[in-house]
Amino acid sequence: MDPINLKKLAEILNVSVSTVSKAFRDSYDISPETKSRILSLAKELNYQPNPYASGLRTQKSKTIAVIIPEIANNFFTQAIDGIESIAQEKNYHVLIYFTHEDYTKEVAFVQHLQHGRVDGVLISLSGDAKDRSHLDLLGHRDIPLVFFDRVDDHAKTTRVTTNDFESGYMATQHLVEQGCKKIAHLFFSKDLSIANHRMEGYLQSLHDHRLPVNEKLIVQCTANHVTNYGLIKNLLKQKHRPDGIFSSFEKLALLSFEACEELALNIPRDIKIISFSNIETAALLNPSLSTITQPAFEMGKEAASILFNALENNSVSIADQKVVLNSTLVKRKSTSRE
Amino acid sequence: MDPINLKKLAEILNVSVSTVSKAFRDSYDISPETKSRILSLAKELNYQPNPYASGLRTQKSKTIAVIIPEIANNFFTQAIDGIESIAQEKNYHVLIYFTHEDYTKEVAFVQHLQHGRVDGVLISLSGDAKDRSHLDLLGHRDIPLVFFDRVDDHAKTTRVTTNDFESGYMATQHLVEQGCKKIAHLFFSKDLSIANHRMEGYLQSLHDHRLPVNEKLIVQCTANHVTNYGLIKNLLKQKHRPDGIFSSFEKLALLSFEACEELALNIPRDIKIISFSNIETAALLNPSLSTITQPAFEMGKEAASILFNALENNSVSIADQKVVLNSTLVKRKSTSRE
Repeated sequence: MDPINLKKLAEILNVSVSTVSKAFRDSYDISPETKSRILSLAKELNYQPNPYASGLRTQKSKTIAVIIPEIANNFFTQAIDGIESIAQEKNYHVLIYFTHEDYTKEVAFVQHLQHGRVDGVLISLSGDAKDRSHLDLLGHRDIPLVFFDRVDDHAKTTRVTTNDFESGYMATQHLVEQGCKKIAHLFFSKDLSIANHRMEGYLQSLHDHRLPVNEKLIVQCTANHVTNYGLIKNLLKQKHRPDGIFSSFEKLALLSFEACEELALNIPRDIKIISFSNIETAALLNPSLSTITQPAFEMGKEAASILFNALENNSVSIADQKVVLNSTLVKRKSTSRE
Repeated sequence: MDPINLKKLAEILNVSVSTVSKAFRDSYDISPETKSRILSLAKELNYQPNPYASGLRTQKSKTIAVIIPEIANNFFTQAIDGIESIAQEKNYHVLIYFTHEDYTKEVAFVQHLQHGRVDGVLISLSGDAKDRSHLDLLGHRDIPLVFFDRVDDHAKTTRVTTNDFESGYMATQHLVEQGCKKIAHLFFSKDLSIANHRMEGYLQSLHDHRLPVNEKLIVQCTANHVTNYGLIKNLLKQKHRPDGIFSSFEKLALLSFEACEELALNIPRDIKIISFSNIETAALLNPSLSTITQPAFEMGKEAASILFNALENNSVSIADQKVVLNSTLVKRKSTSRE
């Protein structure tokens, strides 16, 4: 079968290529009858104009980009599921980009995207840099941007997050209530505002429960899991090792489980663990893991809805606001008193 | 800042818009000096021509589509990671589409993609239909297609899979060696050739070990996990319930863990379980889960490499071959003799 194109349609209908092209552009230069004849034949032959030609004409790509640190992470998997559910409904296409926590990649993606491949961008920041000025490039090109989870607090657009401070507070308070007195905190990157808010919640909770802050129990982890495993083992081998861990990053809790097994520490008897986590198998772990569970799917959906609303209204400016969806504390065996 | 465009560049350099356009097209109609002047100013001002204009001209979108059933599945998460690692290296963009096991969505995505949005397609089929003729549309448009995991055995292109028959055989044999005599098999969709190959391995293994085939122990599951949970509970409540389960789909093993807990069946004492699975926490489950682990990342990488090789060579036909990457049997507590 020869591919159908404008020329072919023009031949069959005995009109000019320019007339066919005008039908697809919905031009007033041709009669409604001619337009209708052309469009119904195109439909019959299953022909749509080349989207690049169409993108050029309407300046709409019907495509958004989603920039995230990684996909092998249950939070991002579920958030993308939420984003995609809205994109399907709105007939938008979704490009995905993984920074692998590498700031230079984030900058390169954004620099490329400013040149018109997408109508809008959803981003969750990489963990390794303070400078966010590359994101201004999108604004200069009138490409709207919405943040989710790892947001820039100072960006003048919508930032969709969970209640990070309160969640950090709740998690720490839960460990206190279960009898912990030496509570460690594992976090990833001081350059992420959400990590800082979670830590502020931890510190406030210690303060409110009159527990001292011990710097040796606050561990900044990296993007490298081998390094992190070493850091966690060192924490657990300290003379005054913690009796509780609040992890603000799922993978760090799983590494803590492995380290406890290697060091023959019993969870929850010797140490109790709670973590930010969207892991599907939390209830099936040995022991089952107490979690702060983010509404990841809903956060993705919300961020996408806000972006698509702007696109549909041809609005390039997005409300400068923080949208907060609350996380849930789920108590399981890893923090039980036994 | 006003956006930089062809007109602006032309003004600054005092040349015509058409001359600037020719510089970006690498045309021989203008002098190398003029071309160089234009391109260096463009670089300085961080200007790249609109990719849709560029796509129209070169007929290359530098974009591929990945069509998969779902993202909340560790196999697909890791496979996409593999695909993306190659796409980044080759400077390609990745569009993702989830069918949610819905054949009509798969057809709609493919119908759209034939119109030139992408240069090539990677697909893992949805589970619910036998007819694959919609995929021919891509061939008619010279858009190359590579299958991974859920392949169409009869498609005249490259199909990247694991050794499904041998893996099904190995998993079943492992249960036999651990003392199981009534081995159930949980699978998803008879329309997927990989599910059939895994079942053939199971049947052959039973045959070789002189164990009878009991139809009541072979359970076809659905895309609905509530339904599946009911099916698995019924299986486990049978008078002659199985003493081993070989699951060909990760989620079905996790549901089996939950059902065993509800029915107070001890794994591995009352029943042993092994599953195809790429779950990161297999070793941390209660009990740890014996798995057939697919090389998901490598399968994604391999499929993407084959597609990009074709695209780089401007070849529209991809070798009609099956590429098999072997899975690994990992023995853990869920199949131990205790």
